[in-house]
Amino acid sequence: MTMPTGGINDEFYMRLALQLAASASGQTGINPVVGCVLVKEGRVVGMGAHLKRGEAHAEIHALQMAGRQAQGSTVYVTLEPCSHHGKTPPCSDRLIREGVKRVVIAATDPNPLVAGSGIAKLRASGIEVTTGVLEREAVKLNEAFNKFIVTRQPFVTVKSASTLDGKIAARTGDSKWITGDGSRSYVHTLRHRHQAIMVGIGTVLADDPALTTRLPVPGLNPIRVVVDSTLRIPRDARLVRDGEAPTVVLTTERAPQARRRELETLGVEVIDCGPGPAVDLRAAMERLGEREIGSLLVEGGGKLSGALLEARLVDKLVLFYAPKIIGGGAAAPGNFDFPGFGRMREAIALERLEVERFDNDICISGYPRYEAESDTENESGG
Amino acid sequence: MTMPTGGINDEFYMRLALQLAASASGQTGINPVVGCVLVKEGRVVGMGAHLKRGEAHAEIHALQMAGRQAQGSTVYVTLEPCSHHGKTPPCSDRLIREGVKRVVIAATDPNPLVAGSGIAKLRASGIEVTTGVLEREAVKLNEAFNKFIVTRQPFVTVKSASTLDGKIAARTGDSKWITGDGSRSYVHTLRHRHQAIMVGIGTVLADDPALTTRLPVPGLNPIRVVVDSTLRIPRDARLVRDGEAPTVVLTTERAPQARRRELETLGVEVIDCGPGPAVDLRAAMERLGEREIGSLLVEGGGKLSGALLEARLVDKLVLFYAPKIIGGGAAAPGNFDFPGFGRMREAIALERLEVERFDNDICISGYPRYEAESDTENESGG
Repeated sequence: MTMPTGGINDEFYMRLALQLAASASGQTGINPVVGCVLVKEGRVVGMGAHLKRGEAHAEIHALQMAGRQAQGSTVYVTLEPCSHHGKTPPCSDRLIREGVKRVVIAATDPNPLVAGSGIAKLRASGIEVTTGVLEREAVKLNEAFNKFIVTRQPFVTVKSASTLDGKIAARTGDSKWITGDGSRSYVHTLRHRHQAIMVGIGTVLADDPALTTRLPVPGLNPIRVVVDSTLRIPRDARLVRDGEAPTVVLTTERAPQARRRELETLGVEVIDCGPGPAVDLRAAMERLGEREIGSLLVEGGGKLSGALLEARLVDKLVLFYAPKIIGGGAAAPGNFDFPGFGRMREAIALERLEVERFDNDICISGYPRYEAESDTENESGG
Repeated sequence: MTMPTGGINDEFYMRLALQLAASASGQTGINPVVGCVLVKEGRVVGMGAHLKRGEAHAEIHALQMAGRQAQGSTVYVTLEPCSHHGKTPPCSDRLIREGVKRVVIAATDPNPLVAGSGIAKLRASGIEVTTGVLEREAVKLNEAFNKFIVTRQPFVTVKSASTLDGKIAARTGDSKWITGDGSRSYVHTLRHRHQAIMVGIGTVLADDPALTTRLPVPGLNPIRVVVDSTLRIPRDARLVRDGEAPTVVLTTERAPQARRRELETLGVEVIDCGPGPAVDLRAAMERLGEREIGSLLVEGGGKLSGALLEARLVDKLVLFYAPKIIGGGAAAPGNFDFPGFGRMREAIALERLEVERFDNDICISGYPRYEAESDTENESGG
């Protein structure tokens, strides 16, 4: 780790706490990742992170390491300590009981109904509380959790890999390989960090993908979700038979009952999302949310990505561009295939843009900004 | 100017010479840009650049400024001094006569037939010569000239501005505006730096563009070149009537003679490029080269860009991406519209990639690498 130029200060310890939290990204399920560092008299005396849903919170691990030195210490924690009895007793009570002197917090509880109650409890007991240290970084680290805890719907990240002319395959359908090793390896990191991965049935029929996490070290496989309105998924598809991770098929009420029973017998969960003909994507997100899937990585083709974007269900885009041009006109599929907008000013804009290089590939990520429906209508008439 | 971290050395003075050269980019026509700095006893004593074709070379301006101090000085020059009688007498002879002590050169003459002859002449007279200082930067600065001097054909730069799904307009054709102010301003800088600008007749009919250089300070307008196989360009098109810069229309032998005469009467140059039906783009480049156009900026639509790329006539791509997604499928035109390749591995790869930000837009530039024709065929059969 490089020393921050600012030297040792609140940000220095909070950055460490954020790194502890980030290391657990992907392994806490629907829970947020949280890191905690205890400092007393100029020395780090405790470190911890929330590692698994249902197990100890970050503060508890750090307090355990510190033992009797917790008393009078400063606690750096990336998320406001909880004040309610969940699967574990409230951390704010424990911090008070251990006699810590000061608590420094990056982000407050994202649930507006409970935000600030942990801080209030600490302050009421005489502990000095500082908030907002590296808040932006902390909020971003739990962007999926922050959405889910308020809406009960997954945070949806659409990933695509295309050429510079926006094509995800040649006119023949050939797509191996668009991007290089570096990009593909990063995609597997994204899979590790998401609870579920979604593709359209077209991708399953064309590529028979495993959708597992393949890293140089063991990773966690996401739940595989297939959008398949008429249950065309073959019984010998990898997703049906490999047993590497649960597979969920989202379909419609018009799907054949026999196919449904067959898939269920093979261990696949089949969920109805509306009457059809297409899978109701809004309903799909509600069903996945009910199943406690809080983060969804979409690796579908252009049609699925386009449909999700048009339905305003995409929270984040991660777009890889390989430095090549393939051509092929309408015969070569594009990264976003949907009817789209009549005026350039109506296009969906991306905010908070980031640009990264992976070898020769360029990765552009950002967050779609959806204009209010009525605004869009006014504009298209203007 | 920021001081280079390496302090004062050969690169320090060469960097200054390169800046002098770069400042004249666009104003020397088919000639290269060259900068020269004279240093004697720790002081800069002369500076110069080649400013206009037919006028003094960089070395001569710098020697003039140095006067009697040229004797015993070190000469930093971005391009090998000429050794032949062109429009001006040879610079190497002049440097010898002025009694300079040492000559430091960035790039040798790009013409392989004469490369090194200036250096040989200097060395033969006892002058110490160092070569290759900041060579890469110097070669890039004259990439257009370097191609033209060897091939007698223009260096072709294709510029496009698209959304992240590769669309240059909405399905309705609306394209105002894709990119932001920063990108558009940079495009005008590119126009200033190119001898000619090319569009397809479709762009002329749709937008009636002026294709002039509009900067906050006066710029140089490129020659306007229109690819128009049947001479559909209207007599009241801006390019025909505004007189801001010469306009050249590239057409075919099947174009109506009456239209040709009408356009010529209006001051437009009409050049035949093959029998048709389409303009023979290879022949077009030869005709433009004969006309001493050494740098061509293509701002056509996807069809022209695609056709040029497919004909392997593109030397450089400058691709602007606005952070937005417009959709529209096949109805919305893409940045490169050509039949393309059947296999992803046959795609045209870009080398020496650079990524820049212009406000929220992303500019990706690179140089297409064309595989040998036979290789491509082998691959498509593999």
